[in-house]
Amino acid sequence: MATARDVDVPSLVSAAREGNPRAVARLISLVEDAHPALREVMAALAPDTGRAHVVGLTGAPGVGKSTTTNALVTALRARGDRVGVLAVDPSSPFSGGALLGDRIRMSDHAADPDVFIRSMASRGHLGGLSWAAPQALRVLDAAGCDVVLLETVGVGQSEVEVAGTADTTVVLVAPGMGDGIQAGKAGILEVADVLAVNKADREGASRTGRDLRHMVAMAERDADGWTPPVVRTVATSGEGVGELVDALDAHRAWLGEDGLRARRVRRAAGEVEALALEAVRARVGRVAGADRLEALAGEVVDGRTDPWAAADRLVEAVGAEGLSSSGR
Amino acid sequence: MATARDVDVPSLVSAAREGNPRAVARLISLVEDAHPALREVMAALAPDTGRAHVVGLTGAPGVGKSTTTNALVTALRARGDRVGVLAVDPSSPFSGGALLGDRIRMSDHAADPDVFIRSMASRGHLGGLSWAAPQALRVLDAAGCDVVLLETVGVGQSEVEVAGTADTTVVLVAPGMGDGIQAGKAGILEVADVLAVNKADREGASRTGRDLRHMVAMAERDADGWTPPVVRTVATSGEGVGELVDALDAHRAWLGEDGLRARRVRRAAGEVEALALEAVRARVGRVAGADRLEALAGEVVDGRTDPWAAADRLVEAVGAEGLSSSGR
Repeated sequence: MATARDVDVPSLVSAAREGNPRAVARLISLVEDAHPALREVMAALAPDTGRAHVVGLTGAPGVGKSTTTNALVTALRARGDRVGVLAVDPSSPFSGGALLGDRIRMSDHAADPDVFIRSMASRGHLGGLSWAAPQALRVLDAAGCDVVLLETVGVGQSEVEVAGTADTTVVLVAPGMGDGIQAGKAGILEVADVLAVNKADREGASRTGRDLRHMVAMAERDADGWTPPVVRTVATSGEGVGELVDALDAHRAWLGEDGLRARRVRRAAGEVEALALEAVRARVGRVAGADRLEALAGEVVDGRTDPWAAADRLVEAVGAEGLSSSGR
Repeated sequence: MATARDVDVPSLVSAAREGNPRAVARLISLVEDAHPALREVMAALAPDTGRAHVVGLTGAPGVGKSTTTNALVTALRARGDRVGVLAVDPSSPFSGGALLGDRIRMSDHAADPDVFIRSMASRGHLGGLSWAAPQALRVLDAAGCDVVLLETVGVGQSEVEVAGTADTTVVLVAPGMGDGIQAGKAGILEVADVLAVNKADREGASRTGRDLRHMVAMAERDADGWTPPVVRTVATSGEGVGELVDALDAHRAWLGEDGLRARRVRRAAGEVEALALEAVRARVGRVAGADRLEALAGEVVDGRTDPWAAADRLVEAVGAEGLSSSGR
C-alpha cells in the first residue's frame, strides 16, 4: 500500500509551483489515487491558491465540449494566459478508467509548456468527485494557471454539481438537440453564467439561440443582476470564441472580489464537507460486530429491521468508536 | 415545516399494502420529500418487502428506455404480474423538478390498477439518490408488485450506481450510437446482466449486437458463470420484448435465493450507509462557531488552512456534539 513516505512532497510542490508539467501531473495523480501524501500536498499548496479563474464547461454529449475547450485554450494562449484543463469523465464505477480516446485528445497544445491538460476519471463511489475535482483545481491553480477550464459531461447530477461550482460556468448547447430541452432536462441551464450555442453554422442555430434566450428570461433566477449572455460559436473554426472569452471576462468582472469569494467559499464548503463525510465513511468500514454495515444490511433484507433504524445503529457505533480519533 | 404527525402512517401503510394507488403515490411522495414520517413508514413496511424482482433499465438518452419500459409493462401484465415503474430523472439540482413530459408519459397503462408508475426527481445533493430510490422501491415492493422496473438515464455515475443495485440490470443500446462505445464510456456495460439492442429494425443493429457480444466476451467479469445475453428488441412494436422478459426470468433463476440475497444486501448496505452519512451531514449543519462549515471554507479560500485540516476540525466538532445524540 502507498504511504506518504513514497513521495517527496516538498520538491514536488516546489516544482509544481514553478509550473513543471511532470510535477503537476504527478500531484494530480496523487489526487486521483487519494494518496496518503495528499494532506501534506494540500497544506503546502494552500498559500498559493486562489489566483486562477475557474471556468466550468458542461453540456450534453455531442455538443462539442472538447472542441470548444481546445478553441478556448488557443484563444487564451494568444493573450499569454497560462491555461489548465481538467476534463472529468463519467467513467466506470467499476474500472475507474477513462477511455484512451479522451486522454490523448487535444494534442494541438500537447507541446505547449504553458498548457496543462488532464483527464480525470470520476472513479470511486458517489461523492468522490466532490473532493477530487476541487483538489485537482488547487494543483493547477498553484501551478500558476491564469484560467482553469473544468470540463464535465453535464448529464449526471454529480457532473452538473461539479460544473456548477466553478467561478464561471459555461453551458454548451448544439442546434437541433431538442432545442435546449435536453439541457433543461439535465438541469444544466440553471447553473449557466454563459450559454454557448456551438456548431452555430448548422441549421437551427438561430432558433436554438432564441429558445435559450427565452428560457433564460423565463428562468427564476436570483435577482442578482446578471443575465447569462447567449454566445454563438463554431469551435472547429474558432468563430465566436473571442466573444466567448469576452463573456467569461465580463462575468468575472461582474462577480468582483466579493462575488468571486462567495463562489469559492461555496466550493470549498462542498469540498470540506465531502472530505469530512469520507472520513466518517472510513470509520463506518471499521465498525465491527452486529453493527457492521453488512450485518445491518442483512437484517434489513430479512425484514427484521428497517433502513433508518439500521442507520441509527451504524451512526451510534461510529460515534462510539470515536469520531475525533485520528487514524486516516 | 412538515412533521410526522401530519401523516396517518398506519392507514396509509395498510392501504398501500393492499395496492391502493393513491396510498402508494403518497408514500413515494414522502420519500421524495424526506418527510419525517418516513422512518415510521419504513419500519411498518419492513416485513412486507423482499418479494418484488427489481429490474434496472439504463442506457444513454435516446436509446428508447421509456418505450422499452412501456413494452415490458405490457408483456408483464399479459402474464398477470403486478408491475411498478420507478423512473429516476436526472433533474435539476436547483429546482428539483422533473419535466412534465416524463411525468405524463406511458399513459398506455394509466388506467390499469395493477401498474404503478412514478417518475422521481433525483433532487437534492449528491447521495440523495442512494437512499431515496431504494426506499421508493420498498414502497412498490410492499404494495405487492411482482416486478419493479427501475429506469435511470445511465450517463452520470450516480444513475449508473442506482441501476447497478437492481436484482437484474438491463442496459439498452441503440444501433449507430457509436456502436456501444458511448455505453462503454459511461461504464454501464459493466453493470449489465442483460443487454438489449433496441431499435433493432434500424440499420447497423446486427453490427451493434456483434460489437456488444464482443465487448461482453472481452470484459473482465467475475467468473460467476453468467454471460449477459444480447437481446434484439423493437420496443415500439413489441418485437423481441418476450425474449427480454425471458432473459430477466433466466437471470433471476440463475441468481437463486443466495445470489438474490447477496445483491439485496449490497443494495441495503448502500442505503443504510447513505442514511447514516445523511444523519452526519445534518449534524454538520448544526456545528457552530469557528468550526462551522462556512467559517472553515472561508479559511480554506483565504489560504489559511487546507481542506483536509478543515475537514478534520469539522469531524472533531461533529464528534464533540455527540454523534449518538438523537434529534434527526
